[in-house]
Amino acid sequence: MSIEESIKTYGARIDALLKETIPPDKKDFLSEPIWHHMHTGGKRIRPALCLITCEALGGNIDEAIHFALAIEVMHNMFLMHDDIEDGDTVRRDQPTVWVKYGIANAVNAGDYLLACAFKSILESPVTLENKIKLLQVFTLTYGKTVEGQALDINARAAEDYSVDKYMEMVQLKTGYYLACGMVGGAIVSGVSEQVVEKIWMLGKTMGPAFQIRDDLIDLTHGKGRGGAIGSDVKEGKASFLYSYTLGVASQTDKKRLHDIMLKPRDETTDDDIKSVLEVYKKYNTLKHAQDYADNLIKQAYKTIDDIPVEDKTVFKEIASFMAHRMS
Amino acid sequence: MSIEESIKTYGARIDALLKETIPPDKKDFLSEPIWHHMHTGGKRIRPALCLITCEALGGNIDEAIHFALAIEVMHNMFLMHDDIEDGDTVRRDQPTVWVKYGIANAVNAGDYLLACAFKSILESPVTLENKIKLLQVFTLTYGKTVEGQALDINARAAEDYSVDKYMEMVQLKTGYYLACGMVGGAIVSGVSEQVVEKIWMLGKTMGPAFQIRDDLIDLTHGKGRGGAIGSDVKEGKASFLYSYTLGVASQTDKKRLHDIMLKPRDETTDDDIKSVLEVYKKYNTLKHAQDYADNLIKQAYKTIDDIPVEDKTVFKEIASFMAHRMS
Repeated sequence: MSIEESIKTYGARIDALLKETIPPDKKDFLSEPIWHHMHTGGKRIRPALCLITCEALGGNIDEAIHFALAIEVMHNMFLMHDDIEDGDTVRRDQPTVWVKYGIANAVNAGDYLLACAFKSILESPVTLENKIKLLQVFTLTYGKTVEGQALDINARAAEDYSVDKYMEMVQLKTGYYLACGMVGGAIVSGVSEQVVEKIWMLGKTMGPAFQIRDDLIDLTHGKGRGGAIGSDVKEGKASFLYSYTLGVASQTDKKRLHDIMLKPRDETTDDDIKSVLEVYKKYNTLKHAQDYADNLIKQAYKTIDDIPVEDKTVFKEIASFMAHRMS
Repeated sequence: MSIEESIKTYGARIDALLKETIPPDKKDFLSEPIWHHMHTGGKRIRPALCLITCEALGGNIDEAIHFALAIEVMHNMFLMHDDIEDGDTVRRDQPTVWVKYGIANAVNAGDYLLACAFKSILESPVTLENKIKLLQVFTLTYGKTVEGQALDINARAAEDYSVDKYMEMVQLKTGYYLACGMVGGAIVSGVSEQVVEKIWMLGKTMGPAFQIRDDLIDLTHGKGRGGAIGSDVKEGKASFLYSYTLGVASQTDKKRLHDIMLKPRDETTDDDIKSVLEVYKKYNTLKHAQDYADNLIKQAYKTIDDIPVEDKTVFKEIASFMAHRMS
């Protein structure tokens, strides 16, 4: 089975368990906003990667599926809270939860998802030792992602935002998160600590590579939040492109970028976006970002070569899949 | 040592561990908002009750202190998110976190507290079995409290809000939460499941009793959020007083209460508060609420009589303490 097929198959299993965990027909102020959000899409990629890794390493996916679900649930909790934090009003052409149900219900429904996530892991049919390990992995990932989000929220105001700072932020915000499923699958399958450590390392290169690609897509194809190009610029998001250009641009161009960054979303015009694109063009930023991401992917493959398991196929397939089409 | 003295002693230990867990001098967008919030006060009563229970039942408080800290941290996470959800701008004469640092940082710093709470429990020096039990108790409490909050947030719009609905909400929102520390302390001390079950039951009467008392205080002495009387009325909070009166009042009086309930906070006048107080007076609501709370306390003492331990002193002391001065 290809990764794409596995994701489809395992995604369906995750969906079934999700419906057991949070019944969609329950008309309260938790299930309703949560399922409004869930229906905006999601391919269950993260939990599927957990199960794929578990199986490839000889584990039993029935032991990993509760953990896999927890990752998917946490992912959606972050999306729900991020939409509030970023002031995003539309997700995949639907109003975001806070817009439809109010900030109070959106904060609270997100909090509820986290309870569901921990409950799910506690119900895993694994040994006590593994249960604790899974909870440690999950708690670590959750905390680090929040730390990354704190850096991200407050990045726009910084005048000296550098590539190093961007990388620190994105490793925290997406690195742990991306590796977490694979790590959980690996733990359930009973591999050594050394394997687990290498998978964490993989997250530190794959996560940023994926995020830089996402930053690029926003300026080349648009991110599908209403379809427009440059939504990161409107939002004032400190992207890789922004951090890189601040490091190489003239004072005038830096100021131009920073001023647009600080503009409130609804005051950021299409001309501002054009202006940012011009500056990026001047410094060849998009090309540099692509190269930087490619280099991270290369590092990831090197890390995979060092994973102390005989058959590294699954990791290579996952890396290739992520590099090409994760969303 | 009296409960008051124990709370002081144990509260200081909790404070020390809290400072280790979240360093106050770290100037980032997590520690700073969290410590701004922490400095608005808090007597560390919940975690102290955990340690007091643990010790009284023959347990080692060093094994319970990480769990105790987790409760305090969760408590503050809820306060931080509740302030956003309720639109409260002032807490103990200080601006709330979302007012001072923005909604994004307030949501995120609250999320971070929860990571710290789980991390703390995972670091407890207890057996694997007990660690899992503590995590289950904590996750259950966290989830139920969020469920209660969902009912609370959406209660004001309901025209048929009843005492039964109030009790369901408040048992979820405050009952588990109040019992959680004692339950954790009891688990660490190694008592039977039967003892633990009775402590949970205790929460179901003590929690609502405490909350009804809190509802009363708002109309008799004010709650200290700026000091004014009737802040629950302004906030549109569906209190015991409100739910009880809806069940006994005439259509006209019901409409009067409901209309004021639905008014936005800044449009609710002092005359509105007076008007609500008049309706409550007409139906003897305050006296009835006091009786209802007293009856719950009586039930709590009965539950304590049934706890299968020899010396029930600690539970009686805690109940008496809570009934008289918890805040």
